[in-house]
Amino acid sequence: MTYTLVLLRHGESEWNAKNLFTGWVDVDLTDKGRAEAARGGELIREAGLEPDVLHTSLLRRAITTANLALDAADRHWIPVKRDWRLNERHYGALQGKNKKETLEEFGKEQFMTWRRSYDTPPPAIEKGSEWSQDTDVRYADLGDQAPLTECLKDVIERFLPYWESAIVPDLKAGKTVLVAAHGNSLRAMVKHLDRISDEDIVGLNIPTGMPLVYELDESTLQPTVKGGRYLDPEAAKAAADAVANQGR
Amino acid sequence: MTYTLVLLRHGESEWNAKNLFTGWVDVDLTDKGRAEAARGGELIREAGLEPDVLHTSLLRRAITTANLALDAADRHWIPVKRDWRLNERHYGALQGKNKKETLEEFGKEQFMTWRRSYDTPPPAIEKGSEWSQDTDVRYADLGDQAPLTECLKDVIERFLPYWESAIVPDLKAGKTVLVAAHGNSLRAMVKHLDRISDEDIVGLNIPTGMPLVYELDESTLQPTVKGGRYLDPEAAKAAADAVANQGR
Repeated sequence: MTYTLVLLRHGESEWNAKNLFTGWVDVDLTDKGRAEAARGGELIREAGLEPDVLHTSLLRRAITTANLALDAADRHWIPVKRDWRLNERHYGALQGKNKKETLEEFGKEQFMTWRRSYDTPPPAIEKGSEWSQDTDVRYADLGDQAPLTECLKDVIERFLPYWESAIVPDLKAGKTVLVAAHGNSLRAMVKHLDRISDEDIVGLNIPTGMPLVYELDESTLQPTVKGGRYLDPEAAKAAADAVANQGR
Repeated sequence: MTYTLVLLRHGESEWNAKNLFTGWVDVDLTDKGRAEAARGGELIREAGLEPDVLHTSLLRRAITTANLALDAADRHWIPVKRDWRLNERHYGALQGKNKKETLEEFGKEQFMTWRRSYDTPPPAIEKGSEWSQDTDVRYADLGDQAPLTECLKDVIERFLPYWESAIVPDLKAGKTVLVAAHGNSLRAMVKHLDRISDEDIVGLNIPTGMPLVYELDESTLQPTVKGGRYLDPEAAKAAADAVANQGR
């Protein structure tokens, strides 16, 4: 027997469209993003998948994506669990900055280090600054745990306790689990599942709005097929290539 | 100290608009209903209310109303609990029937008995019929508990265990509780809160998309103001009058 895990990156957000670093800034989806989310839900329904439980971040773009996708999949009524540990990577002082302008100002090497380095975070965001979350009530309980910047390694470290304590128990209960989250929290999950090296994860991009299905062995929780399968593989490949070209 | 409870009836549904008995049939909101839901959320935000937890039914029109209202109130990230005990009254064999045609076919007395009698349910729905929920997976665990028709008294009886076991504990924890539900599950709640008699509840209508706020005494859980307060009292009065005139 296998367990079924469905990953869904949120549809296009207003700041994806404007080419800004977003991180924990709680921007909305664009109309295109809403359409992507609904299409993701249709693909889930057409594939005969029936999520029994949803896990999302605390950010609007993942929450709305999940709402729209589950509505389209006729699974709007399933239980929901939300946690900051599924949030996008905190982009530190880069939050709110234009990607192209950042590339031009700091040069390609620094830019790619900030965007893709496994263990080098951008500079920390200043508390009280425009795009900081330090007064956001939804993170008030985190105290010093609330990040001011993160690299992918940091995301993996804060994601794994949630994987073990919340997602794995749902899988082991035989539930089909839908995780609606973000480029980097899903990269963290995929790196863990597929045992991707710190070097190789740098080149992995996850497209928006494309359901990615993993069947996990019930004893090892390892994927039966490395990398899982996209429900619409051709669209996923085209979209992943587009993500890789952001900022160029 | 008082506890804060916010009730929100879903916005206009496709079958409200078509004047059909809906009950447990899982119809969508109309565009007007979506706008009502968002407006409800804006009223909640403008009133400075900050729901800490959402309780909804398992029906799309309440779930989508809650999603849209919480998004507009900037509280999209709060925890969600859903339960069939917050569902609309099951309308039995009337589900899917036109209200005006039912009135003409059966006469005003029988019609009003079915619509508003406290303890006389409509005829039970036939299992396997078009608008029955007997094969709906979301109710599979209910077994014989799943209703085939309900009067308001039945709704109160199945709602109260949820009130006691799920909503009261959230209130007692000091949380501002939002309940997004239906005309009759909210009438059940209001009857219980305001200790309305079996006779008087017949004349009480709750308008769609209008947040109704109760402050409850922390020791007795009784409303400090009987009937609570609508955040937009004038619009609520006009809308309640319109509900009372349905089928006429």
